[in-house]
Formats: sequence, structure tokens, C-alpha cells
Amino acid sequence: MSDLARLSVNQETIKQWSLPELVAGCGAAGVDKVGLWRAPVQEYGVEAAARLMREAGITVTSLCRGGFFTAVEEAERASALDDNRRAIDEAAGLGTDTLVLVSGGLPAGDRDLYAARERVAAALAELAPYARERGVRLAIEPLHPMYASDRCVVSTLSQALDLAERFDAAEVGVVVDTYHLWWDDTVGAQIDRAGAGGRIAAFQLADWITPLPEGVLLGRGQLGDGAVDFRWFRERVDATGFDGPIEVEIFNPGLWARDGAEVLEEIADRYRQLVL
Amino acid sequence: MSDLARLSVNQETIKQWSLPELVAGCGAAGVDKVGLWRAPVQEYGVEAAARLMREAGITVTSLCRGGFFTAVEEAERASALDDNRRAIDEAAGLGTDTLVLVSGGLPAGDRDLYAARERVAAALAELAPYARERGVRLAIEPLHPMYASDRCVVSTLSQALDLAERFDAAEVGVVVDTYHLWWDDTVGAQIDRAGAGGRIAAFQLADWITPLPEGVLLGRGQLGDGAVDFRWFRERVDATGFDGPIEVEIFNPGLWARDGAEVLEEIADRYRQLVL
Repeated sequence: MSDLARLSVNQETIKQWSLPELVAGCGAAGVDKVGLWRAPVQEYGVEAAARLMREAGITVTSLCRGGFFTAVEEAERASALDDNRRAIDEAAGLGTDTLVLVSGGLPAGDRDLYAARERVAAALAELAPYARERGVRLAIEPLHPMYASDRCVVSTLSQALDLAERFDAAEVGVVVDTYHLWWDDTVGAQIDRAGAGGRIAAFQLADWITPLPEGVLLGRGQLGDGAVDFRWFRERVDATGFDGPIEVEIFNPGLWARDGAEVLEEIADRYRQLVL
Repeated sequence: MSDLARLSVNQETIKQWSLPELVAGCGAAGVDKVGLWRAPVQEYGVEAAARLMREAGITVTSLCRGGFFTAVEEAERASALDDNRRAIDEAAGLGTDTLVLVSGGLPAGDRDLYAARERVAAALAELAPYARERGVRLAIEPLHPMYASDRCVVSTLSQALDLAERFDAAEVGVVVDTYHLWWDDTVGAQIDRAGAGGRIAAFQLADWITPLPEGVLLGRGQLGDGAVDFRWFRERVDATGFDGPIEVEIFNPGLWARDGAEVLEEIADRYRQLVL
């Protein structure tokens, strides 16, 4: 087995590449797994993207992303559910069993995180059977607490598991992303909990670097450039029996400005040195 | 008792004001408590600042800040301890019993948050007796997890209490600051824990607003402009028996650009509407 056998590259990490470039670049680098995003897949066409991957022997490990479930207003809520059903269809069309969900933030003027999380649970209850019928598992991604108001009211792995465990493990899992969780001294115990329950739907890597940029969205670091102890995370996740893909998902304009093949080579090197 | 009896204004909130302007402005607004920072106090002179406050009948509720204890290198560590002894002396000189501590981040290239927190504990052990002799309590401030790598490895009230509880409650307490803790679904239980142990050394308010600015230091919101439920916090803190000062500490260039008296009036209005 190649030492890159578990490595998956999320397409946003090398977003300067089109889907065909991603497939060709991964093939050249010996990487046979990718994580995809809805917008570029829709633009290329779901069926065409699925065929492209299939013919190149590439596995789609996850689709990003559904979610944004926290609206109070009924029309907005119904529209979010419709959009998530389309996301589930797209995931099924791509042949991935994992749809990553970012829960959504607080509606304007709202200050009730608890109620917002309950609306996430209600949306999961509506979507889980639909997803299960299509062979797709919903994966709740806790985002760093700095996104709690405007992007994701689920901030810790503990909160994500509190939501997921209301459902069958085949229907709802969680995402363990080092960028969002590295600071939390309870994350080891929560990884154990997630693994014991068969809830780890995706394991994603990015490093934590500072200073954070304005808006704090595009400041993720290349593996090894920041504060995250990747081997600790990988060993802890694997110790639960998880042997699934390890997906590198970095949003960083510095990486996007470089040659894609060079970025992918660097990722593979860092992965060998710091993760394995 | 005035409805502003517990309100304390941290001087950084209205940093366009000199110390004499702060004293005059607070007097005019019916506010008789302030939180001070070391640099402007040193510039004015500790004794002169103490006299200024005393003669105006103003109480200093806290001094910000000591800390930055996480260095590995011995000379750096000794220098930090020396500086903290000076901070304790300054707090005593100002007549406040509370020195706020920001723990410090990870040294360059270091990824061990656990070991860094142990170095914080070691520094507290060295400083606590010195502080106690001078009537000053060390107040560990958990900072939002977005500061964990570069500013403060203590990210939750739970972690702060884990550290504080190694010491006598008269020596080491914690700061409950809404800006840093609002997102945490365990904060209510941890406030209860802090209050039951007599550990609440300071209660500070700022609102959480987005988008965050580059560097994420100066993006705190005026009370009511963001996602924090202040009344929930105040009631939870008070329910533990805490009846100390409620200090407004907002770092926001928008407030600094305005007339200080107008800012203070707005704070008092928001405090009456949203906190009491």
C-alpha cells in the first residue's frame, strides 16, 4: 500500500485547478482521493464530474457542503431543506457517502445559540431518511468558535456529537477537522467518543496560523506551518479504529497563487513527515 | 443605590481619554469605578494615578494585565516573572485587589498546549504568595480560542478554573468575559463552578460582532451590537452570589474615534437596557 493511500485532497486546497486538472494532477502525484465542493461540481455537471472521477480511478471522499439550517423564517427554512436535498442528490451522484454540513450561524438579531442548535437537529431529522435512502451520511462539522455567530453554531466536537447521537450512526456522523478543534483540551476524549460510536465521517487537516486575516475565512495554514500537532490527531483518530481517508482542506490564497503540482507535492511531503 | 453602582469602565474602552479625562468623564456620568491598564498608568505614574482616583472617589476594579508565562527559555521566563511582580506592585499601589492575567501563547515552533498550561501553573505558584502579601489576587482570563496559539493557551472558563483551583481562592481567581466565553455551551455550568468556589475575580462585558478585523484584536462590539446575551450572563453570574463590579472592556477603533462622553453615555444606556 502506498504511503499516500489514505490521503485525500480537497479541491479547495488547490482551487487554481479545474476538475480535469485536479484529476490529472492527483494521478501524477499518486493521490487517488479527492474531496469536492458543490459549486465547481455544479458548474462542471454532476454526471460529467462523476464520470471524470470514475474513469481516472479517483474516489470522492466527501462533498462540501450542505447545512445553513438555522433560519427561523419558514420560507427560508424550507428553501434550505430543498437545497440540502439537492446536495444529497449531488453527493449520491458523485458516489460519495459523505455530505459535510456547516450548520449556519445566528439569524440577524438573534442571540439564542441553544435554539439555533435545536433547529439544526430538526433539519437533520427531516433530511436523514432522505440521505440514507441515497446512501449518503450527513456529517456535522463543528467549526472553530470564531465562526459561532455568522457561520456555524456548532463549535465543538462535543456539540456535534450531542446532535449526531440523536440519530443512527449510519445516518449522521461528524467531521474531525484539526483547524477547528486543535485548541480544545477535551478533543481527545471527544474523538474517542466519536470513534466508539462509529461517528467519524471525515477527518480533515489544516494548520492553525496567525495573524488571522480579515473575516478569518482564508487564513488556514499548510501542514507544518502552524500550531497543530497532526500526528497526535491522526494517532488518536486511528486508535478508535478509524481507517478512512485523511483529507487535506486548506483555504489559503498563498497556496492558490502557486503552481498546483508544486502545492500538491508539498502537501504529500508534509503528510509523510507530519501525519503518518 | 444608583443603577450604575456596579458599572466599571475599562479605560481601553475610551482610550481617547487621558487618565484625568477618564476621571472627570466618569464623575460627570455617575460612574465611580474604572479598570486600568499598565502602560497608561506607568506613563502617568502609579502614585499620581492612585491619588487622582482616590481624590475623585473612583475605585480601580482591576489592572490589566500581567501574564505571558509560557516561555520555555529560562531568561525569558525569569523576565516574565519579574515583570509580573512589578504588575502586582502596581496593582497594590493603585489599591485594586485584582490583577488580570493573560497566560501567553505557544512559543515559536511549539505545539504542546498542555505543557504551556503547566508552565502557567508553575508561574502562578511562584507569584501567588507575592501577590497575596500585597493584597492582590491573580485573575486568570480565558481568552477566546482564536487567541490560543499567539496570546493565551487558556481558552475556556473550565481550563482557567482547572488552573485556579490548584491555589487558594484568595490567591487565584478567574475572569468571566462575555467576549471570550459567549459561544461555549458549558459556560453556564462553569460560571456556577467559579461562583461556588469564590473564584470570580472580575466580570467583563463586550459584544461579539463580525466580520472580525485582521489580527482579530480590535473587533469587539459595543453592548447590544452583537450576539451576546448580556442579561443571561449577568443573571447567571449574580446567581452564584457575585455582587462585584461589572466592567465594560471594549477594544473598538470606532468607539475610540468618537467623543468620549458620548461613548460613555451610550455604554451607560446599553448597560441599563441590556445588562441590568
